[in-house]
Amino acid sequence: MRHLQELLERAHNNIAKPVVAVVWPADESTLMAIEAAVEQNIARVIAVGCREAVAQRMTAQVDNSSITITDAATPAEAATVAVKLVNEGKADMLMKGLVNTDVLLKAVLNKETGLMEPRGLLTHVTIGEIPTYNKLLLLTDVAVLPCPNDTQREAQLRLLLQLCRRLGIERPRVALAHCSEKVDERHFPVTVTYRDLTRRAATGEFGDCVVDGPLDVKTACDAHAATVKGINSPLQGQADAIIFPEIESGNAFYKAMTLFAGMRTAALVCGARVPVVVPSRGDDHQTKLYSLAAASLLSTSDHS
Amino acid sequence: MRHLQELLERAHNNIAKPVVAVVWPADESTLMAIEAAVEQNIARVIAVGCREAVAQRMTAQVDNSSITITDAATPAEAATVAVKLVNEGKADMLMKGLVNTDVLLKAVLNKETGLMEPRGLLTHVTIGEIPTYNKLLLLTDVAVLPCPNDTQREAQLRLLLQLCRRLGIERPRVALAHCSEKVDERHFPVTVTYRDLTRRAATGEFGDCVVDGPLDVKTACDAHAATVKGINSPLQGQADAIIFPEIESGNAFYKAMTLFAGMRTAALVCGARVPVVVPSRGDDHQTKLYSLAAASLLSTSDHS
Repeated sequence: MRHLQELLERAHNNIAKPVVAVVWPADESTLMAIEAAVEQNIARVIAVGCREAVAQRMTAQVDNSSITITDAATPAEAATVAVKLVNEGKADMLMKGLVNTDVLLKAVLNKETGLMEPRGLLTHVTIGEIPTYNKLLLLTDVAVLPCPNDTQREAQLRLLLQLCRRLGIERPRVALAHCSEKVDERHFPVTVTYRDLTRRAATGEFGDCVVDGPLDVKTACDAHAATVKGINSPLQGQADAIIFPEIESGNAFYKAMTLFAGMRTAALVCGARVPVVVPSRGDDHQTKLYSLAAASLLSTSDHS
Repeated sequence: MRHLQELLERAHNNIAKPVVAVVWPADESTLMAIEAAVEQNIARVIAVGCREAVAQRMTAQVDNSSITITDAATPAEAATVAVKLVNEGKADMLMKGLVNTDVLLKAVLNKETGLMEPRGLLTHVTIGEIPTYNKLLLLTDVAVLPCPNDTQREAQLRLLLQLCRRLGIERPRVALAHCSEKVDERHFPVTVTYRDLTRRAATGEFGDCVVDGPLDVKTACDAHAATVKGINSPLQGQADAIIFPEIESGNAFYKAMTLFAGMRTAALVCGARVPVVVPSRGDDHQTKLYSLAAASLLSTSDHS
C-alpha cells in the first residue's frame, strides 16, 4: 500500500462494518469525517453528545440508522458513555471529537469501567504516506508513550505486526530504530532489547515477519544507505514500520516528515480493547477519515 | 543564508585564510574537496600523510605552497601529527580523511597532547539546506554527544550562537526542541533546563538572540503550526538552529530530513580549540567542501 486513500478502499470492501462511538462531535472536521465514513460505507456511527448538530446536518443518515445519536451533557460524560457502549458490545472503536485527549483517555484507562486489559498499554501508531517512499510507513510511538519498558516494547512490536497484517502486508518488515547499529548496553540499554527482539523474531516467535535492530532509520528505509554503511540488513531498506526508542525521537521524526517531507498521516491509539482515533489539533477531516478507516480495519479483521 | 553554496562565497571573501590539517587524505572525495578548497580560495591545506597521492594529483598547488605535505606513516600517526600542528599554531582546523572517526577524536581528546579546554565538550553541528525551508537550519547534536548534561547544554547553545553569528545571522533564533511545549520536571527534566536557558537568554546573557523552548520542531519552524497550537513563540516559526534533547531525536530528525526531505548538509565537530570536519561515510566531496568552508568561517571570524 502506498496511499492512505487505499485505507478507505480496503475498509469499504470489508464486509464487517464496525461501529464507531464518536465522543462529542461538535467540530466541523469531525462532522465531515463521520459523514464521509458513513457515505463511503467505512463504518457505522454512534454520535455521543451534540444531538442537534448531528441531527440537523445528517438527517438522512439518522433516518436510515447509519448514524445514531446517544445523549451526553458534557464532553467528559460523552467519553464515559462511549466507553460504556464499547463495554456493552455496542461499539467497536472510539473517536475523539471536540474533547481533550486527556479526558477521553482517562475514561479509557479507568481501572473499573475502562477498556484496558491487565498490564495493557496505550501506544500511538502513525501511518504515514510519504511522497519520497514507495510504501506506507508505520511509526510508533510519536505522541503517547514516553519511554517504553521491555514489556511495552514487545507489545508495540506485536501491535505493529497486527496492524501491518490487517493492512494486507503478509510479511511485515519492522525496524527497531536507533542512531547506530551497535549494541551498546552501557549507554543505550534499549539496544539490548532490540537485539533480543530481533533474535526472537528470527525464530518465528512473532509469526511471518522480518524484524531488525538496532538500525538507523535511513538504513531501514534505503537499501543504498545500507550498502554504503556496509550493513547487511534483512529489511533491505524496505521497512514497513519503525519502532522508535522513545517519544522524543519518534516525535522529531514525525514532525520533520510532516513539515518538510510532505508526509500525510492517519493515526491510532492502540492497546486498549478497541482502537481509539485521537486526532491532533489541526488535523483535517481527511486525516480523521483515514484514521477512522485504519481503526475500522484493526477492529474488524478478526471477524473477517 | 539559504544555500550551502553561500558558505563557499562567504569563506572565499574572508580575508583570513585558515590552514586545515587533513588527516590521511587517501580517498577520492577528500582529495577532491581539498583541491576545490584551495582552488576556490577557502583554506590553505596541510596534507598529513599520503604524500604520493597528494603530490601526484596536486603538483601545481604543492609547487605554489597552497598545499603542503607533512609525512605520517599511519592514519593514527597522522591524527597525532595533525593535532600537534594545531598546538604549534601551524593549523587552524582539522579534517578527517580516510581514518576512523574514533582515532581522530581520540587524538583530539588526549588529555596531555589534545585540543580540549578543561571541562570542554565535543559536540556535532549539522548545517542543513532544506528545499522546503527558507533558510539554512543548524542542528545539534545528531551524531556525537549522546545525552548532554546542563553544562554541556549551555555550551551547545553558546556554540550554536557563535556559529550562527559567523554565518552572518546577527540575531540568531534557537529552538530548544522537545515533543511538546510543557515543562515537565518529573518525566522530562531537560524541559526545566530549557526553560532556564530561555529565561537567561531573554535577559541578554547570551547577547542578541532569541531562544525558546521547550518547543516542538514544527512549531519552531512553521508559524502556521504555532498558530494552530495556540503557541506564541518569539521564534515566530523562523528558527535558525535547533538543539535536540539527546542524540536519538537529533539523529532521527537528521535521517528523516536527508532521506525523505532532500536535505543537503555540512557538518562540524565543535568544542575543541579548533573546529574538526568529520564527514560520514558516504558524504560526497561537495558535502566535505561545504563543511570545510563552515569550519573556515568558525576558525577565523575572531580575527576578521
